[in-house]
Amino acid sequence: MHALDMALKNCGADAFVLYASSDDADMRYLSRFVVHDTFVFFKRLGQPGTIIISQMEGERASRESIATVMTRTQAGLPDIMKKEKNPWKALAQMIVGQAGKTLLVSQNLPAALLRALEEHARVLVDEGTVEQMRAIKTPQEIAWTKSVQKHTNDAMALAVSLIHKATIKKGMLYHAGAPLTSEYVRTAVQKQLMDCGCRAVETIVSCGKDTALPHAIGSGQLVAHEPIVIDMFPKDEATGYFADMTRTVAKGEPDAKIVEMYNVISEAKQLAISRIKPKVTGAEVHQAVVDFFSERGYESTTRGFVHNLGHGVGLQVHELPTLGAAGLFLRAGHVITVEPGLYYPGTGGVRLEDMGTVTGRGFSNFTHFPEELVV
Amino acid sequence: MHALDMALKNCGADAFVLYASSDDADMRYLSRFVVHDTFVFFKRLGQPGTIIISQMEGERASRESIATVMTRTQAGLPDIMKKEKNPWKALAQMIVGQAGKTLLVSQNLPAALLRALEEHARVLVDEGTVEQMRAIKTPQEIAWTKSVQKHTNDAMALAVSLIHKATIKKGMLYHAGAPLTSEYVRTAVQKQLMDCGCRAVETIVSCGKDTALPHAIGSGQLVAHEPIVIDMFPKDEATGYFADMTRTVAKGEPDAKIVEMYNVISEAKQLAISRIKPKVTGAEVHQAVVDFFSERGYESTTRGFVHNLGHGVGLQVHELPTLGAAGLFLRAGHVITVEPGLYYPGTGGVRLEDMGTVTGRGFSNFTHFPEELVV
Repeated sequence: MHALDMALKNCGADAFVLYASSDDADMRYLSRFVVHDTFVFFKRLGQPGTIIISQMEGERASRESIATVMTRTQAGLPDIMKKEKNPWKALAQMIVGQAGKTLLVSQNLPAALLRALEEHARVLVDEGTVEQMRAIKTPQEIAWTKSVQKHTNDAMALAVSLIHKATIKKGMLYHAGAPLTSEYVRTAVQKQLMDCGCRAVETIVSCGKDTALPHAIGSGQLVAHEPIVIDMFPKDEATGYFADMTRTVAKGEPDAKIVEMYNVISEAKQLAISRIKPKVTGAEVHQAVVDFFSERGYESTTRGFVHNLGHGVGLQVHELPTLGAAGLFLRAGHVITVEPGLYYPGTGGVRLEDMGTVTGRGFSNFTHFPEELVV
Repeated sequence: MHALDMALKNCGADAFVLYASSDDADMRYLSRFVVHDTFVFFKRLGQPGTIIISQMEGERASRESIATVMTRTQAGLPDIMKKEKNPWKALAQMIVGQAGKTLLVSQNLPAALLRALEEHARVLVDEGTVEQMRAIKTPQEIAWTKSVQKHTNDAMALAVSLIHKATIKKGMLYHAGAPLTSEYVRTAVQKQLMDCGCRAVETIVSCGKDTALPHAIGSGQLVAHEPIVIDMFPKDEATGYFADMTRTVAKGEPDAKIVEMYNVISEAKQLAISRIKPKVTGAEVHQAVVDFFSERGYESTTRGFVHNLGHGVGLQVHELPTLGAAGLFLRAGHVITVEPGLYYPGTGGVRLEDMGTVTGRGFSNFTHFPEELVV
């Protein structure tokens, strides 16, 4: 049975309702239709999903969406708007007319629409049914994420080769006579990904002390003998699915503390991967890494290992499941990252990140990029 | 007085609350901090805005945000979570603790958070105060959008030159011996924009019958003597501001119907621009174009002029004000598009789009790209 039908039955609602653009992962998942203006999705118990979109998008939606397509005019909006000038209230009347008087709405339904719906219907707020559906990938979705990770692999190869081939003058990196900057590497990588139909944004190429901030994207000329963290998370434009990968490299041997951190992180990643399988929780795997770091003398507080071990990847770069303190059971079909990192202000940071899928027996890694600190 | 303070005074609320990632334009506007995970912004009456973010983002936020920065730990979340396991309820307790017991929340606050806040506070839903603030641009914001439109101009020049230089074999376009496709032009344009620090996605390069669908992005080999609609709306990564421009061209004279539509649209654009000034409504300018098309024998129904005349541009590609039936008064500092289009299934579509700002006396056009149908 469709998970949404189960959710509807459990709470006695007539229909599930979502209102978002397809920048919202749940909307893209349920409609497989890409439009950047907000629109309505609803699904009545036992019926296929329906989207209600503007006249202008009608023909394209009929071609592209997996949902049944209805225009706002067909759903009666122009008539409603003759009497009701408040757009949220008019929208709510249209939705209730089509979907029913007891509605299960998504958690992120806009507050203004919730209030307007409450004037006409009993409204229950769903607890993440679609997010949970999305966490378990079909073979098709796994193929899509694997394909993006393959392009990411090639892009990482380009980034590392730019650093590898750089020349060093007075401790700074140069490429073809010009300073080799974070921006240059980022743009080169993002262009190559664009050629593969992938959109990468805010690709992290951070160097030196910036690496101690996990999300600093980096800027300026790259420096020899310092860690360089490269973290890319492109999205395939055609499918909407993301991949995620991180490597840390240095041009020339870095400080011994960085080398030690690198080796410990590489071990932590292997340890985590060996623990991943169905019926183990994300919290347990995360804790195993926290304990391992602790044995090796690294804390997991506001320094050291400051973030979660990993996260699901799909139509969002961060989605369920969580590999962290709040992590629940892992299940076959989860696509997840494993990304231990250590961050010490003044010293720097190191992170390695693979992505793969939980299988019936363990973890199938989609990431085959070598680990090599000094390039 | 700050518009949010005015809104708070008017409804007697203690604080305004927003919960979103900075992919949300209101959040980026109020915080000027870029992070893709959701976080809290609140502003108490007469106080500066505050963001509550994860420990991990604390240092970067302190460097980059215009808001006061507080970590979730400083806001007491870990202690709350010892007793309250539901993340929405815990978040709501934290917000009420910091912001107060009468809250004005944004229209798009997630429904689940609204319900959780209602357990502890009186909650009023705002009616778009921040969206309205965003519509009137500061000189700095105008400079940012103008700068993106300049890059867009250069990208349009590249697209048109690729088509201009193409050779024709059996009615199809070729570039350097290979088929010249929508995808090739799109990628070339997007890469050039990337070199300027701009992210363009889903750039429309549609040809022939696809041009009759305003939002079809186009695919496959370009065809001679057919309209080619090029619509680009890049975002400057550093500032978050968008631009928007459309031109329609043809390699070789197209059908006389297309030529006539092109000339009428060019006139419609000039007419619209001549009507734009403060104290005129977006609805009036739109209607003037509808009337003009009608005089020339073109309808504005499900065929012909099927969309609004224009829209605001800023941190969103579509924002206030509206140049359409629902359009309110235009004001100095609005940054808007003027984009008449005509669409006839079977024949094709033509659209021209400029972007500029409403000034005290009229319209200052940021778009200087020539209009030339046959290239």
